[in-house]
Amino acid sequence: MKFEHETTSERARLGRLETAHGEVHTPAFMPVGTAATVKAMTPEMVRATGAEILLANTYHLMLRPGAERIARLGGLHRFMNWDGPILTDSGGFQVWSLAKLREIREEGVVFQSHLDGSRHELTPERAIEIQHQLDADITMAFDECTAWPTTEEDAAKSMRLSMRWAQRSKAAFREREGYGIFGIVQGSVFPDLRIESAECLLETGFDGYAIGGLSVGEAREKTAETLDATLPRLPEGKPRYLMGVGTPEDIVDAVSRGIDLFDCVLPTRSGRTGQAFTREGKLNLRNARHAEDPAPLDAACGCPACIGYSRAYLHHLTKSGEILSAILLTAHNLHYYQELMASLRDAIRRNALAAFLKAFHGAERRDELGAD
Amino acid sequence: MKFEHETTSERARLGRLETAHGEVHTPAFMPVGTAATVKAMTPEMVRATGAEILLANTYHLMLRPGAERIARLGGLHRFMNWDGPILTDSGGFQVWSLAKLREIREEGVVFQSHLDGSRHELTPERAIEIQHQLDADITMAFDECTAWPTTEEDAAKSMRLSMRWAQRSKAAFREREGYGIFGIVQGSVFPDLRIESAECLLETGFDGYAIGGLSVGEAREKTAETLDATLPRLPEGKPRYLMGVGTPEDIVDAVSRGIDLFDCVLPTRSGRTGQAFTREGKLNLRNARHAEDPAPLDAACGCPACIGYSRAYLHHLTKSGEILSAILLTAHNLHYYQELMASLRDAIRRNALAAFLKAFHGAERRDELGAD
Repeated sequence: MKFEHETTSERARLGRLETAHGEVHTPAFMPVGTAATVKAMTPEMVRATGAEILLANTYHLMLRPGAERIARLGGLHRFMNWDGPILTDSGGFQVWSLAKLREIREEGVVFQSHLDGSRHELTPERAIEIQHQLDADITMAFDECTAWPTTEEDAAKSMRLSMRWAQRSKAAFREREGYGIFGIVQGSVFPDLRIESAECLLETGFDGYAIGGLSVGEAREKTAETLDATLPRLPEGKPRYLMGVGTPEDIVDAVSRGIDLFDCVLPTRSGRTGQAFTREGKLNLRNARHAEDPAPLDAACGCPACIGYSRAYLHHLTKSGEILSAILLTAHNLHYYQELMASLRDAIRRNALAAFLKAFHGAERRDELGAD
Repeated sequence: MKFEHETTSERARLGRLETAHGEVHTPAFMPVGTAATVKAMTPEMVRATGAEILLANTYHLMLRPGAERIARLGGLHRFMNWDGPILTDSGGFQVWSLAKLREIREEGVVFQSHLDGSRHELTPERAIEIQHQLDADITMAFDECTAWPTTEEDAAKSMRLSMRWAQRSKAAFREREGYGIFGIVQGSVFPDLRIESAECLLETGFDGYAIGGLSVGEAREKTAETLDATLPRLPEGKPRYLMGVGTPEDIVDAVSRGIDLFDCVLPTRSGRTGQAFTREGKLNLRNARHAEDPAPLDAACGCPACIGYSRAYLHHLTKSGEILSAILLTAHNLHYYQELMASLRDAIRRNALAAFLKAFHGAERRDELGAD
């Protein structure tokens, strides 16, 4: 898996990742396709937002429809009709956040499915096998997501278990042209643990490095501190992925610190709950103030929702619980995120990130909260 | 509103209806866009199925978002981003099937909204005014849907009320180039009442004639008998619309008897509940037998669902409750219905309806019912 690291503006990086299923221009945002679908979108709609790579979930897909079944049906790309690159997470985070009756051992994790209570096991070897069966372009090492809040002692124990699992994950990974495996730096908000974790992963050697266990409840300054302590320890020539982050502000901040890849359910989940990201902040389409507004969400946006529809219509769809509300708002939000990434790449290319950050932070944005 | 009546094959008719928002080739099926959206579809997707005209509902739109609001926002076409013709029903049927605490008087109907219990009134004059506000290309006269089962006496009373309302509807209708109003023949399954109703409407004079109050529970032979008694009384040169019908079999049968227009929620509602119309019958995608099937719904179908996806994937989406299941199956079902109409038009054009009917009825179709 080739990663070209083209230019930098401050600490931000412009890159191009070459995978078996095509290129990804970084910094990149990966829409989340949990159960082999980006919710409320066809793959053509996702592609039209500018997305080049999707994320899918080992945990969800192993439970339903099963990784062996997807393999028999030709792999995840064919199954979900997405011919671009796919990154799969390893299941560690979802076992932690969704599964019931988890039991964590050296060998791996035994848990009950949140769907039907059935008993399953994930080990590093099994997590990698599943990701092979799915035919993920980017496989993630299996890890334990450290709880928050935590003590330094517990965080160290958890991180060291993840590091032993990372080694086993790498050993189980089958090298193929255009495919790669990323290790995940853990260590909660403790800089020494993050550094130990990064060094441990470097020793094993991965095709990319992810920062896990952030945005789980810690203060925003802690996220920034942790990134700043960790990133200098990671090799310049490999992609860096901040898992599960985040808001537009979080992404802009992390790009400026040197992150290349992101994923988050925020644009898709918000789209299904009547919320739209715009340059003036997040709009809540349920609010009565939109009921008669003939203006689009954003007059400067070229997405299908902004070209065809008024805020009044989107308000009506949202209040009426119509599926088209989820379709249009998700398309808009993903478009907004991809435009943001494209603007960031452009600013880095022109060595103009400082100006971008000034404009971005200077813009007046106000998130609209509950419905009237 | 011009209707050209080009050729016939047996009693079936090939026609072209010219409206203010474009042409409709008949026999035509109108997808139902109840609340100003064909559920789970963008207008582009609906257009891509071959649909030329949509139906929308006076009852739903008067309650939410309100007809005055839609008028202020430029009318229904602009509101819902559909630039083709729209037919609106008059609200009579929905008051009958959805509203609470109905009180029917000579003047009109007083009822409570099924959404919030608020009190509303619909009279012929108000129903027509709302349809003007919506800017419907085809306005439907306000009627009372006769209950089923019913006595001939009750059916006669109900029909005669609808006929007085039809006259008032016509009087309230504002003639405009490319716009028209259809009267609705009532009279339940009693041929004499249907004939009386048809003659009554003809005396007033409408741009088209609908058959209402069928497919409400009566036996299928009764539907056919009623059509055969009614249709000869309607003028050849005006379009004939069988309201709320139906299954592919119902439509083929009614076309062969001389019907030009149809609407039904079946393809869209079925699409949201995991059911797909195919030439081998209706499939239930929840059934486990589809779980590993790499074949598309229909190898000969050119819809987005059949081109991109396996039955196995559609099964997975349906079992997982994913919105994409509703999107793809609705697109497929509407495509199936539009292909059926195109085949019917083609058969009529070639004066080959008998052969079409033989092939259609000879094909082995088996509807798949409940899920495993």
